Amino acid sequence: MGTTGSIPGYTYGEPQVQHSPVTAAELDALKETLLWTDGDDQALRLAGDVLEDQVGDVVATWYVAAHPHLVAYFAPAGGAPDPEYLERVRARFEQWILDTCRRPYDDVWLDYQHEIALRHTQAKKDQTDHVNAVDRVPLRHIIAFIYPITATIRPFLSAKGHDRDDVDRMYQAWFKAVTLQVALWSRPYAREGDW
Amino acid sequence: MGTTGSIPGYTYGEPQVQHSPVTAAELDALKETLLWTDGDDQALRLAGDVLEDQVGDVVATWYVAAHPHLVAYFAPAGGAPDPEYLERVRARFEQWILDTCRRPYDDVWLDYQHEIALRHTQAKKDQTDHVNAVDRVPLRHIIAFIYPITATIRPFLSAKGHDRDDVDRMYQAWFKAVTLQVALWSRPYAREGDW
Repeated sequence: MGTTGSIPGYTYGEPQVQHSPVTAAELDALKETLLWTDGDDQALRLAGDVLEDQVGDVVATWYVAAHPHLVAYFAPAGGAPDPEYLERVRARFEQWILDTCRRPYDDVWLDYQHEIALRHTQAKKDQTDHVNAVDRVPLRHIIAFIYPITATIRPFLSAKGHDRDDVDRMYQAWFKAVTLQVALWSRPYAREGDW
Repeated sequence: MGTTGSIPGYTYGEPQVQHSPVTAAELDALKETLLWTDGDDQALRLAGDVLEDQVGDVVATWYVAAHPHLVAYFAPAGGAPDPEYLERVRARFEQWILDTCRRPYDDVWLDYQHEIALRHTQAKKDQTDHVNAVDRVPLRHIIAFIYPITATIRPFLSAKGHDRDDVDRMYQAWFKAVTLQVALWSRPYAREGDW
């Protein structure tokens, strides 16, 4: 996975990460709804190779495309976004692209999805980076971000000369992987028994 | 919109539909996150024309593609799906495709999104069709359905001889429209203040 120890607040696989309450059976059922196949795993590995040296540009695109909507979550209510907070998250966001493509979706991955989920909510937002900002990202916008995070990836997937079919396979797998993670991240937002 | 009075349980615009708690400002902000443009409205109108005589085939594809996962929500826990329930929802699902493409996304539309949302949850599931089935669709699967409902539409959008750019515009607008509705449908699942 390369050296990740230098990314502030990135605790993938570290012992302080709580265990996810999501079961392997629940994960499998979600993948069924997403029509997930082994081909998607392969396509994500290929996407990881294609995106590896582009992650900075990808996240830069997201920061610009989603502006000013995304940056509001890096600011106190009605205030200005915190540039250091944006930069700390940028590094984790870049790593998240590679994790999405390359990590096995196992228990360690599920645990880190749970950690990411909590960092979007009142439970843990702002704590990792010790910042003063709004205390949650609303669930509806977490869901809505599926669109820009998916649609904007395609030009990057096609930037290395792969043919249209390969690009499409990578794109579809990416779309599934993003949607899967948003479904997992929705858990702490849901009322008891409704997730 | 054509004759819809014959669709069982379809109450779009009828006085018994509750008002949505979602504000126009919240809807606008969601559309911003989705990078919504006027071009998307136009592309959805075109998609409505393209899909109008294909809605039966589209929903048939969804019923098959998502089987057995989708049909579980038409059954009591551990039981067999209710064929009449499936057929009643099929007719509304077909109409939903046209509503997604053709209805203005105004207060009446927001109210019906709220009604659809409630029909997925303990609040109203099974009541419209007077059936015995599981009492909710879990939030995580509502979110995951964004993928199959989006990905499977593309062949239908390209079935009428439009060029690739037009098909892509319709596809992107459809993807945004589905994601927008899932974001709206998530509201009754969310804890107070977290939506």
